[in-house]
Amino acid sequence: MLQATRKDAAVQNDPNVTLITPEAPVAVQTHGGRTKCLQRLVRLDLPVPRTVGLSFDAVHNIARGEMPDLGMLLSPFDAGELLCVRPSSEDPDWGGPGAILNIGMNDARYVDLSERLGEEAAASLYARFVHSYAVLVARLDPDVFDEIGMEGKASLSAALHAFEDETDEPFPQDPAVQLAEVLRSMARAWEGTSARLLRQAKGAPADAGLGLVVQSMALGFGTGECGSGVIQLVDGQTGLLQLTGRYLSQSQGRDALEGRAEALFLERDPRGPSLEELAPTAFKDLIRYAGLMRTKLREEMQAEFVIEDGRVHLLDGVRVSRNSRAAVRIAVRLAEDKIITQQEALMRVPPVALNELLHKQVDRDFAHDVVGRGVAASPGAATGKIVFSAADAQASAARGEACVLVRRETSPEDIRGMHAASAVLTERGGMTSHAAVIGRGIGLPCVVGANEMRFQMRKKLLTGPGGRVFKEGDVITVDGTHGEILAGDVAMLEATLDDAFQTLLTWADEERDISIRANADTPADARLAKSFQAQGIGLCRTEHMFFDDDRLTVMREMIFADNSEDRRAALERLLPVQRADFTELFQTMAGLPVCIRLLDPPLHEFLPSDHAGHRALAEALDLPLSQVTRRVDAMGEYNPMLGMRGVRLGITVPEIYDMQARAIFEAAITAGKSGASVVPEIMIPLVSAKREVELVKMRIDLVAAAVRSETGAEFDYKLGVMVETPRAALRAEEIAQEATFLSFGTNDLTQMTYGLSRDDAGRFMSDYVRQGVFSEDPFHTLDVDGVGELLILGAKRGRAVRADLVLSMCGEHGGNPESIAFCRAAGFDYVSCSPFRVPVARLAAAQLAIFDKLG
Amino acid sequence: MLQATRKDAAVQNDPNVTLITPEAPVAVQTHGGRTKCLQRLVRLDLPVPRTVGLSFDAVHNIARGEMPDLGMLLSPFDAGELLCVRPSSEDPDWGGPGAILNIGMNDARYVDLSERLGEEAAASLYARFVHSYAVLVARLDPDVFDEIGMEGKASLSAALHAFEDETDEPFPQDPAVQLAEVLRSMARAWEGTSARLLRQAKGAPADAGLGLVVQSMALGFGTGECGSGVIQLVDGQTGLLQLTGRYLSQSQGRDALEGRAEALFLERDPRGPSLEELAPTAFKDLIRYAGLMRTKLREEMQAEFVIEDGRVHLLDGVRVSRNSRAAVRIAVRLAEDKIITQQEALMRVPPVALNELLHKQVDRDFAHDVVGRGVAASPGAATGKIVFSAADAQASAARGEACVLVRRETSPEDIRGMHAASAVLTERGGMTSHAAVIGRGIGLPCVVGANEMRFQMRKKLLTGPGGRVFKEGDVITVDGTHGEILAGDVAMLEATLDDAFQTLLTWADEERDISIRANADTPADARLAKSFQAQGIGLCRTEHMFFDDDRLTVMREMIFADNSEDRRAALERLLPVQRADFTELFQTMAGLPVCIRLLDPPLHEFLPSDHAGHRALAEALDLPLSQVTRRVDAMGEYNPMLGMRGVRLGITVPEIYDMQARAIFEAAITAGKSGASVVPEIMIPLVSAKREVELVKMRIDLVAAAVRSETGAEFDYKLGVMVETPRAALRAEEIAQEATFLSFGTNDLTQMTYGLSRDDAGRFMSDYVRQGVFSEDPFHTLDVDGVGELLILGAKRGRAVRADLVLSMCGEHGGNPESIAFCRAAGFDYVSCSPFRVPVARLAAAQLAIFDKLG
Repeated sequence: MLQATRKDAAVQNDPNVTLITPEAPVAVQTHGGRTKCLQRLVRLDLPVPRTVGLSFDAVHNIARGEMPDLGMLLSPFDAGELLCVRPSSEDPDWGGPGAILNIGMNDARYVDLSERLGEEAAASLYARFVHSYAVLVARLDPDVFDEIGMEGKASLSAALHAFEDETDEPFPQDPAVQLAEVLRSMARAWEGTSARLLRQAKGAPADAGLGLVVQSMALGFGTGECGSGVIQLVDGQTGLLQLTGRYLSQSQGRDALEGRAEALFLERDPRGPSLEELAPTAFKDLIRYAGLMRTKLREEMQAEFVIEDGRVHLLDGVRVSRNSRAAVRIAVRLAEDKIITQQEALMRVPPVALNELLHKQVDRDFAHDVVGRGVAASPGAATGKIVFSAADAQASAARGEACVLVRRETSPEDIRGMHAASAVLTERGGMTSHAAVIGRGIGLPCVVGANEMRFQMRKKLLTGPGGRVFKEGDVITVDGTHGEILAGDVAMLEATLDDAFQTLLTWADEERDISIRANADTPADARLAKSFQAQGIGLCRTEHMFFDDDRLTVMREMIFADNSEDRRAALERLLPVQRADFTELFQTMAGLPVCIRLLDPPLHEFLPSDHAGHRALAEALDLPLSQVTRRVDAMGEYNPMLGMRGVRLGITVPEIYDMQARAIFEAAITAGKSGASVVPEIMIPLVSAKREVELVKMRIDLVAAAVRSETGAEFDYKLGVMVETPRAALRAEEIAQEATFLSFGTNDLTQMTYGLSRDDAGRFMSDYVRQGVFSEDPFHTLDVDGVGELLILGAKRGRAVRADLVLSMCGEHGGNPESIAFCRAAGFDYVSCSPFRVPVARLAAAQLAIFDKLG
Repeated sequence: MLQATRKDAAVQNDPNVTLITPEAPVAVQTHGGRTKCLQRLVRLDLPVPRTVGLSFDAVHNIARGEMPDLGMLLSPFDAGELLCVRPSSEDPDWGGPGAILNIGMNDARYVDLSERLGEEAAASLYARFVHSYAVLVARLDPDVFDEIGMEGKASLSAALHAFEDETDEPFPQDPAVQLAEVLRSMARAWEGTSARLLRQAKGAPADAGLGLVVQSMALGFGTGECGSGVIQLVDGQTGLLQLTGRYLSQSQGRDALEGRAEALFLERDPRGPSLEELAPTAFKDLIRYAGLMRTKLREEMQAEFVIEDGRVHLLDGVRVSRNSRAAVRIAVRLAEDKIITQQEALMRVPPVALNELLHKQVDRDFAHDVVGRGVAASPGAATGKIVFSAADAQASAARGEACVLVRRETSPEDIRGMHAASAVLTERGGMTSHAAVIGRGIGLPCVVGANEMRFQMRKKLLTGPGGRVFKEGDVITVDGTHGEILAGDVAMLEATLDDAFQTLLTWADEERDISIRANADTPADARLAKSFQAQGIGLCRTEHMFFDDDRLTVMREMIFADNSEDRRAALERLLPVQRADFTELFQTMAGLPVCIRLLDPPLHEFLPSDHAGHRALAEALDLPLSQVTRRVDAMGEYNPMLGMRGVRLGITVPEIYDMQARAIFEAAITAGKSGASVVPEIMIPLVSAKREVELVKMRIDLVAAAVRSETGAEFDYKLGVMVETPRAALRAEEIAQEATFLSFGTNDLTQMTYGLSRDDAGRFMSDYVRQGVFSEDPFHTLDVDGVGELLILGAKRGRAVRADLVLSMCGEHGGNPESIAFCRAAGFDYVSCSPFRVPVARLAAAQLAIFDKLG
């Protein structure tokens, strides 16, 4: 059981079956992570039991029936030494067969060990092996052997009998036969269909290999202090430095972790006895070894150890498993301790992990009662009483009661209700439905497309697929991170924007080479964006500004105006409101760029859709109901997404854009007087032809000239185009002649490229992704092949006529790491995403830059 | 007044002011059509008065104030000779200032001519000149001079007085001054804004030039037989050979045509005296000259002539104006007479002219009472009583009464009503709305988007923008060729598919190098397609087959089925119906290729949309009304165009395509037994990813295998993809791996490329085209820049992996000459269009081929 010094020659001839020495030809890609880690421990001169590594090829051959030369394999080990076999896959997440310990136990060894360790200890070792062998190798009924147990002589004898009963053969006695059967069984388990599907689901390639290690056993049983345990230097929940682990005398494997009352703390602890007290020398060694692993392996590791007669053996080391919060703290701490570089720290945190830190989360360590599922549309979790209308949500908020807004789907009319609610649940929609987009924008947990639940809006009932009925006022929890609806209140983890989080993002900004802006429609959004250090606003959707009750009425008057004059009069009243919104926006962003999109949605979205709404509108406008109804009907569209919206409004009802441009310019002047000067960016939506841009530009230039001459103030502004139609991308060369920037709105561009409405796709998207028709939901992950080609074409063609054309992406995809990678590669200047996605985007962008620097 | 023989040297030095001789450097592009035509007549040695041509440049200079050397200009003419000036633009359709005759008349000439021709004749000539000069050159009030008249001494004296009164100057006496003023006035009139806009509207370029001819006058007044007239050898209405014209003694210009009772027929005529009787020699000469013009100018010409003392002078020749029917007959007759080639005959008929021949047309020579306008969506005209529902249309047809179906818009439920109606009028929609597409498909006159009229469906009233009210049962006429609604019955021209039409198209087929197929959904459509000699069916939309009442109920059962088994049971019942449809289709097409598109529209299109419909459906399916309503509601989509349709149905409800494939295969076997063998082409709609094609292909191959094994019959089939999404075009390289043909559905492709719903675009499309935002309605004229690029990309990428990939276009654009040109250039195999567009397409394709052959 000492380091390899002798009898090594034989195995070292075969790279597939190799003794783990500092020089052995071992790599993660050929032998798996555990084998490589053991070699690292060996190189640190740590007390690792003698180990032979079997390569992926070797194991693959075993599965096909070609066993390696067992004599050679066993040559590094002492005769009669007990062995264990452990799996070593390339990525520990991909799973693998369980370890099998105590190989070599047989009647003869039982006699020997009874003498050395005592009969009970020897019987336990033998019984454990029989149990593992019976269940994992001979594939006998586990219940039979679980009942028998694994401790002491009675168990052993019962187990041996049971084995013989079930197989009609005595338990195999030849250690070489035992080892061969163990190896064959583990190799075959890896190749089994269900294991393969399981690991493929975790991202493993179809031909992922399995390595195995054959290690001499440190027994953990016997005379003197013997036992086993695990140790790590950090807490995997908090990420704080905190010696963590358990030790159990006279034990093996993971016994110490199985909640046995007699397990010891490692360090002196008021809660009970500790290894430090029991075996201070071994404890000191252990601490030293763990520290060495941390600094030399440059990672927080969990070590599995055995103490034999007071001497520590390290059997294995694995990366400490950690939640997102801990991942950030660990990476930052390792860098602060100069164990890793800042760049490495940045590379070690998966960007999406930051999402979890921004929102309260369901603490999944506690039981929770799932009553329905849907699309996880906006992360975070919240609890509240069910309400079925936006108005009720506002009433509930006014009473100070948390509520969950339950709707078939949401529309712009629901926005105030959404602001008032703690979470939203809808029957329809997908990742880019209204509820989802708004939810992510304002950080509201949201589950959409929960179409297996029954939504009875009039009866105010919500029924789960299992038949559980919830009525208005009942408490549920919406888990937008996992797309689950839970009954009642549940335990939560708080959001944690701690120092480590801030430090990591500051480091990220030092590395990043693409700008990150936020989509922000209101001053509140802008403040949020600023707090996440967005470098400006990439998309301010002005329509959301018109949904406050007082404004909505004026907006509707404008829509119902019969002539340009009445329309102007209504717009006159909207002007100060818009101007005030923009002024606050500019002031909040304090000189950072702000890109404002002119009105985009079809006007009928501002009209009420039900009878009561029509009647209220008729009253408000003093018009006959029939006229209101007729007008609303006449404005209806078959395919609103493809209808009278965006620049088409700007051209057919130009007064609206005139008013918006004026509001923007006047706000820029006001904000510029009291702070940094403002150069507003004005963006024209849904363009499909150059002439559209020319016409709008002409009028906006006129408004600018008018404002300049009225106020005597000078100001600059930029005019650009939101590229949302395939045609705008294809004709970017023409369009860029009139635009200083192009911002790709990938939501709509995806809809049009696929001919697929995001609002309607929810019904079959999950089917489609499951069947592999689409490899991913293209509204969630940018379709690089189709939509991506249009982006690249548009970018190239635009820059061909205007080398300094500013390019960006402002769809929902903007915050996704893959999309950022795409935009960086295509030479984009910035991406813009919901404020809550900004941290993820900052980290993802930094990782991409580092990846490139590292070559 | 003889041919040029002397004094020519001076003018021949200047190409801008040139005497028209056989050798003069004169071209249509520099001097205009009339000048060139006069040169042709001179070359034929016809008696043309001496003529000087002024080039576009010369006239342009005149407008800018640079008069050419008048001495030189006048040098070819005898001193004291009267002159006229006529316009000569490049295309006679572009208009131009009116001719001015008798230039040079003054008091002195009046005395001379009084002696030669008599005082009254001389006075008439002078009075005419004063009239023209006053109104056209001096721009005096026409009413004053119209009242005075132009005949005899009294008129002359009054006219001269009036001129002096109005201008405070005597009438100019110097012929050179007169000529200079005439030239300047005509040159400036051409450059005027309204003239320019007018001709640009007719397709003239902004810088179109005007030539002028200065011609010595053949007077038409005097002793012996004098007079003027026009002659042509064909009837411009019928195109039949028929000597046509009028002659009036002692007249000038177009006097003979102004309905004067004393005008003579040319040939002996029972209706009255004729030139033939009056002046047989002159008549004989005239006939000879006209015949010479026909054969040598290789066109049916109208000649303007003057007889002076019995001698014929030809002043001018213009192409006989003709309607579409006459155009076809004339072209065919000229070719049959070997005057032109068949290729030339084909080039002389504008393809769209054929459209008019296929349908009854309003005879626009009669007054008609326009009460409303809309989009001219389907050509032809029809009269009938107004009905406001499809059911009423059917009832009306059952009574044998012609009716006009008036709807806000039509939907698939209206199809039977449309078949029953004589014409359709809708409030909404554009060129590619449902009503328009179906209308063109079945040759039904149709006006859509008549949104200036008020449609009161419940009150059954239709009100024109002028306030004219029509109620149910009132008679109106729908002119789908011109987009007009006329009150009552009007005179009509019958459709004329005569021999000349058939001959022309047979010649076209000899030249054509791209195939033309028809879109045909029913056996009736197919027979129509066959009668127009379509080379197959390029698009059979199977959904229309499900709208017959009996089938619709089963279809709805299928839609309401809760599980795959019930769905199959309903589909079992649809199978024989589909099979029978397809069998008849294959039999009708007798071995020509038939391309069948699998079900495309969202299923909710098959469900009733109103309360009564829901109730009927609930009864039919024996379900509670609430359940029906709930289900119908749940199936509603925000953007049906971008929703659950096409291949998305095929993948999520695969039983439908299974049934359709089986029906197709079984029909192919049946039809193949009794006739030519059938190789059906199956087309998958709305594809956006290769995997969609793979999945559908897999199942269809299985169905084929099953049918083969059940029947023992062998059959082939082809599977292809309808390219309707930008993504399918972009990813054609992948998709073509699974498809033997790609057919570009340019309707949907245009919608998605522009992000523009054809159903909703009607509201602003005319605005957009008027403002030049789009140069044309892209649903009407293929957008070559945007959609066209996708077509070319798709074609190239598809052929890159499959060199024999069959490419075609099957949208509404398929029948347009420009689209056919595009498809030919892109190497497409065929285009497919409505049956009624097939003749146009055949001719257009022939013209393109000829154009290429001519280089």
